[in-house]
Amino acid sequence: MMHRLLTAAAALALAVPSAAQQAPAPAAEIPSPGEIAAAAPAKDWIAIPASDLLVIDLAPDAAGKPRRVVIQLMPAPFSQGWIGNIHKLAAAHWWDGTSVNRVQDNYVAQWGDATEKKPLPEGLAVVPESDYVLTGTPIWSQKRLIIDHDRALMADPYWNSGGYSFANGMPVALDDVRLSGLPDPRPPRAWPIHCYGAVGVGRNLSPDTGSGAELYTVIGHAPRHLDQNIAVVGRVISGIEHLSSLPRGTGALGFYEDENQRVAIESIRIGSDLSEATRPKFEYLSTDSKSFQRYADARANRRDAFFNIPAGGADICNIPVPVRAVK
Amino acid sequence: MMHRLLTAAAALALAVPSAAQQAPAPAAEIPSPGEIAAAAPAKDWIAIPASDLLVIDLAPDAAGKPRRVVIQLMPAPFSQGWIGNIHKLAAAHWWDGTSVNRVQDNYVAQWGDATEKKPLPEGLAVVPESDYVLTGTPIWSQKRLIIDHDRALMADPYWNSGGYSFANGMPVALDDVRLSGLPDPRPPRAWPIHCYGAVGVGRNLSPDTGSGAELYTVIGHAPRHLDQNIAVVGRVISGIEHLSSLPRGTGALGFYEDENQRVAIESIRIGSDLSEATRPKFEYLSTDSKSFQRYADARANRRDAFFNIPAGGADICNIPVPVRAVK
Repeated sequence: MMHRLLTAAAALALAVPSAAQQAPAPAAEIPSPGEIAAAAPAKDWIAIPASDLLVIDLAPDAAGKPRRVVIQLMPAPFSQGWIGNIHKLAAAHWWDGTSVNRVQDNYVAQWGDATEKKPLPEGLAVVPESDYVLTGTPIWSQKRLIIDHDRALMADPYWNSGGYSFANGMPVALDDVRLSGLPDPRPPRAWPIHCYGAVGVGRNLSPDTGSGAELYTVIGHAPRHLDQNIAVVGRVISGIEHLSSLPRGTGALGFYEDENQRVAIESIRIGSDLSEATRPKFEYLSTDSKSFQRYADARANRRDAFFNIPAGGADICNIPVPVRAVK
Repeated sequence: MMHRLLTAAAALALAVPSAAQQAPAPAAEIPSPGEIAAAAPAKDWIAIPASDLLVIDLAPDAAGKPRRVVIQLMPAPFSQGWIGNIHKLAAAHWWDGTSVNRVQDNYVAQWGDATEKKPLPEGLAVVPESDYVLTGTPIWSQKRLIIDHDRALMADPYWNSGGYSFANGMPVALDDVRLSGLPDPRPPRAWPIHCYGAVGVGRNLSPDTGSGAELYTVIGHAPRHLDQNIAVVGRVISGIEHLSSLPRGTGALGFYEDENQRVAIESIRIGSDLSEATRPKFEYLSTDSKSFQRYADARANRRDAFFNIPAGGADICNIPVPVRAVK
């Protein structure tokens, strides 16, 4: 039960742990969140279209092992201007020969053209800042996008957010007090969230919004102050350890001071542009499914054998959407 | 302004961004949180006693560079049973020759005796599970411990927590609805929080609570489901990159499968047991100070040049307490 009402009475009820919460966890037969996801029926797993995958092949590591990072791009209707650019950059093989240039501890790993002089392909869109946020679409009322309206009201300390939920496998913040049954004169707003593994678009100062050529992924605690301030275009679903375990840069903001520290990018491609033999295939656990609901409840209320006291809640970045590779 | 009241009216007020929040950020003269901390007067910086430092010297890296990790141990009154054990283990040089054995992406790096057979020193305490949480001490009413009662009411999705604040430079959760002016029949409770860099005590299944010989640090998004379930004994204040950038283990739970992957620990000492020449010295920004209040407000309301829209709030793990080395 994850519903949290924003009333003083409810706050009192919440702050008093129920007897059930305090009772010792029964034996080990209670499944962990991972076990719940693994047991989900095939119908609850959704194949990620190859056209929604961005596949990064870094140069092999010192031992010669390949290093592949796979990103699931943000499904429509979020961030589509930048994602169009990313498709064009990948089609032009623009990133081939660029590098990972910045690794800042508890923050981000960032890649692109270290020289900042490589010409961009023709025809990239200049996306307006207003597209950081989806406005006017009552996303929460689309059953396909949100698993449970109640769930959108889980407490969130980031004020501009009325709550949060999941849209097509991605964590999103919602700013719409109609969710709580109150009137709201404003159009509803929603935007993607900077959780661990989120992929965002580097930019210069406003009004620049970035083209999508310079990308980063979060490798630490969710830097949610970036939400609404930078475009989020997806999340790493495989191989993030090839970025998160890189040596930290010693320059300002974690940039590598010595160019020999940079990690070469061999290629970045959209999944559908790879041959059938080399194309990765992934599924995510439908965030509309009962299985996901059970998984999310279990993340918020750990009752498997190791845990004595379930938290009774979780922040959205502590409920990572399960993903699995398909052979 | 970070106060968040848990009433429907306040929720509405919060969900409607004020004109000030939506106005474009004025020029670059607005200091960043780091600049605010750097400008804090000397009186706002508190020297960490050498007896509260745990100093880990790992074997040098492949290039021969030293790798030192420094932990600030949790000040009283939290987790003191385990911290007493840690002092005894360090005094016995028990960790020398042990290793980092587990690195799980977006979770923890863990160290101790990989064989699990090394005899422990005599006289370690068996600490009860009840000591995961401080009960009955109205910690929030001690001005020395909490910077601002209002601040303790920032929204937190972890239900058992009535709010959170900082105690002597450490993030803590508070379960005491008296904070909101409501009656509460229960004794107040408080406990340390698993933020990035938090150091906890590995244990087996309940009722085991761990001795303190097996330690881990968080290297990903705050795993707050561990709060109240494991002892938190401090946080890494320097050198966490020597743990967070290690290769991830490929065994279950991120344990290294090949013992050659383990990272040797040369020594672990309490700071006060090191010679004056080799003893590190650190200060933290007093969490009671006005400087910290300004810093925390700035973390929650980024208005420096890069940001267009301040979040208006922050979760406690996104407000890391500033620390600086002293020459």
